[in-house]
Amino acid sequence: MSENLKINQTPIPGGVCAPKGFIAGGVHCGIRRNQSKKDVCLIAAECECTAAAVYTQNLVKGAPLAVTKRHLENGRARAVICNSGNANTCAPWGEAHAEAMCQIAAEILGIDENDVMVASTGVIGQELPIDPIKSAADALRISLSADENGSDAAANAIMTTDTFKKEYACSFALNGVECKIGGIAKGSGMINPNMATMLAFITTDVKITPQALQTAVRNAAKSTFNTICVDGDTSTNDMFTVLASGLAGNREITENSPLFDVFTRVLTDLCTLLSRDLARDGEGATKLITCAVYGASSPEAARVLAKSVVSSSLVKAAMFGSDANWGRVLCALGYAGVDFDPETVEVVFFSEAGQVKVCESGRGLPFDEEHAKRVLREDEINIKVSLQSGSPEIFGAALGCDLTYDYVKINGDYRT
Amino acid sequence: MSENLKINQTPIPGGVCAPKGFIAGGVHCGIRRNQSKKDVCLIAAECECTAAAVYTQNLVKGAPLAVTKRHLENGRARAVICNSGNANTCAPWGEAHAEAMCQIAAEILGIDENDVMVASTGVIGQELPIDPIKSAADALRISLSADENGSDAAANAIMTTDTFKKEYACSFALNGVECKIGGIAKGSGMINPNMATMLAFITTDVKITPQALQTAVRNAAKSTFNTICVDGDTSTNDMFTVLASGLAGNREITENSPLFDVFTRVLTDLCTLLSRDLARDGEGATKLITCAVYGASSPEAARVLAKSVVSSSLVKAAMFGSDANWGRVLCALGYAGVDFDPETVEVVFFSEAGQVKVCESGRGLPFDEEHAKRVLREDEINIKVSLQSGSPEIFGAALGCDLTYDYVKINGDYRT
Repeated sequence: MSENLKINQTPIPGGVCAPKGFIAGGVHCGIRRNQSKKDVCLIAAECECTAAAVYTQNLVKGAPLAVTKRHLENGRARAVICNSGNANTCAPWGEAHAEAMCQIAAEILGIDENDVMVASTGVIGQELPIDPIKSAADALRISLSADENGSDAAANAIMTTDTFKKEYACSFALNGVECKIGGIAKGSGMINPNMATMLAFITTDVKITPQALQTAVRNAAKSTFNTICVDGDTSTNDMFTVLASGLAGNREITENSPLFDVFTRVLTDLCTLLSRDLARDGEGATKLITCAVYGASSPEAARVLAKSVVSSSLVKAAMFGSDANWGRVLCALGYAGVDFDPETVEVVFFSEAGQVKVCESGRGLPFDEEHAKRVLREDEINIKVSLQSGSPEIFGAALGCDLTYDYVKINGDYRT
Repeated sequence: MSENLKINQTPIPGGVCAPKGFIAGGVHCGIRRNQSKKDVCLIAAECECTAAAVYTQNLVKGAPLAVTKRHLENGRARAVICNSGNANTCAPWGEAHAEAMCQIAAEILGIDENDVMVASTGVIGQELPIDPIKSAADALRISLSADENGSDAAANAIMTTDTFKKEYACSFALNGVECKIGGIAKGSGMINPNMATMLAFITTDVKITPQALQTAVRNAAKSTFNTICVDGDTSTNDMFTVLASGLAGNREITENSPLFDVFTRVLTDLCTLLSRDLARDGEGATKLITCAVYGASSPEAARVLAKSVVSSSLVKAAMFGSDANWGRVLCALGYAGVDFDPETVEVVFFSEAGQVKVCESGRGLPFDEEHAKRVLREDEINIKVSLQSGSPEIFGAALGCDLTYDYVKINGDYRT
């Protein structure tokens, strides 16, 4: 797929409820102590959907992932149920409780439990309290709505230490047919997506085959969620799912159809918006860091190098301190495990406050420290690395955040 | 080599000056602003030594490493010169300045400059000020001594953000001949040894062939320095060198001689002492964390798993908060890239205050939170992980430290 494919997309409200055929809702059921924090949500379609997902690559996987994988074997689903506050991982009765969550959703919606995907996020190793979810079934059903309130409730219910909800939607045209796509996601620690180290639920009314949807999901994850690093920890419960209702009325997309690239681009763009929010809202973060590497031998090599930079604790701490410590950028490139010539590297920091070139031909350049501080004091920092190891158009980027006192504070005592 | 080989070793004072034939010294030359901080040191032998070294695996390497590698091609050397405050990496005139440091050492000692190893540690990307080192040559010569003051000065001169010096020595017998070994090392950030992500200089009076010494050095690094993780950042300037004067009078050790294992064990034990200090003194650290994994398919697999645990920001932050958050331990094992059965994992935390088993068969156990807090409030924490994936005697360990506010503070503005 061309990186330069541009599609006319219009931002719209409504999140996962924006596409035709979807409802959503969320309530506080009591898994979390804070009664004002919603902790269970449901996203559902009025018809059977094409569905696809990617999951964490952690060997230790949450029970909900095993259940969702089974339910998705036929490439079809109609709903997602998700709780926060407990990961249902390494805990007694894991799969039984995950199946029970699917049953609760199926009963609320009057559908087959095998058409429900299930996800959980929160503390690992404690039995999921299933009774609160059962007791909240009526409230959850009542909370369902087809307007933006439904998506808003769901987006809030999946949050853990996130400080703001992540929710986007847009409309676009496929051969003149108006289609919509919307999504919600949550971070905000344990983020080193190998697939996506977070939860993201996306809906669309596009008609698409299961195989094409799975390929699009995998492709989109590669250059978006999988490039984020908050703390290098790959969660046990990451899941990114797409439900496609097919109600938009477009001709069904297959992997070979010319519109497949258009859909993949739209999906990727939505994932990029969610990914930027996830990185920006990394635990304790004050800044969004984007590292873009140009001129590597392949986009994959460029992404590995970029991710090594945004993953470096030393780079992250320097960004927190607005310190143009480019030596740490070179150091992180050097241990990424990708071959390149250190003698031709160029590094530029830039932000809304301007830019500062700090390294050329692998050597430091004199620069105005005060100007560099101003550039790095912004809350969106870009690190542009140019290699001369491949074609200059070859490009890969990664997203991260700074390392702050608050990260330590939040994670020094998460369970209590 | 048997992990169980026990050798009678007696701790002795004197550090790198303890073995026969060595002198050392260190002074403040002015690379660092703080006049009370020594910043250049010299370790030298009265005769030509067998010498060996391992270096960082970072693709971006400091200029001193290139020069040292060249000088070590014949497996012989007589001295090490090292400065702190500037890494002489990605900076103008790097190799020329590193060669100049060797010349300065050679002139002080009246030896060939090709017999000098050189190392630098500090900020990356700024030209090394060579004049202060030249001007300090006389003072450095005067500081040389064969007693513990010489080693003490050298150990202090290589420190950067280290809060205490790392220095050990011991005596042991080889076939009834008394031999000695001593070493100094520095940390304390950018520690993720791939070789050893730090500097360590070891001396011994053992007689040993260059090839046997190189093998012993490589073996010792594998289970000691290379298992430490402070922040996951592999430095550009890591170097671990050994000088063997051969003055002890033992029959020369070859790789096939029965005493090779004895020497490797003694060397490894010394490296372990230095490694524990490096981890304990990780930037901002308040606790030494040791993770030991039993029952893996190989010692290497066990080390990879253990290192993943001590490298996890979430585990490190939990240890800072004395939080028995074993789910994060399982999570870190799960993304280590090594195959094991999550359903059979057992996790025990222990310290001088007692022990607490928190996970059995991959599931959480009820435990007394107050007791767990007491166990984890100590400054040396052990995390014992038992798998059932291999033989229970197969063992590997890694060393790390907690992640604290002070790590962020120290690294938020390192250059100023």
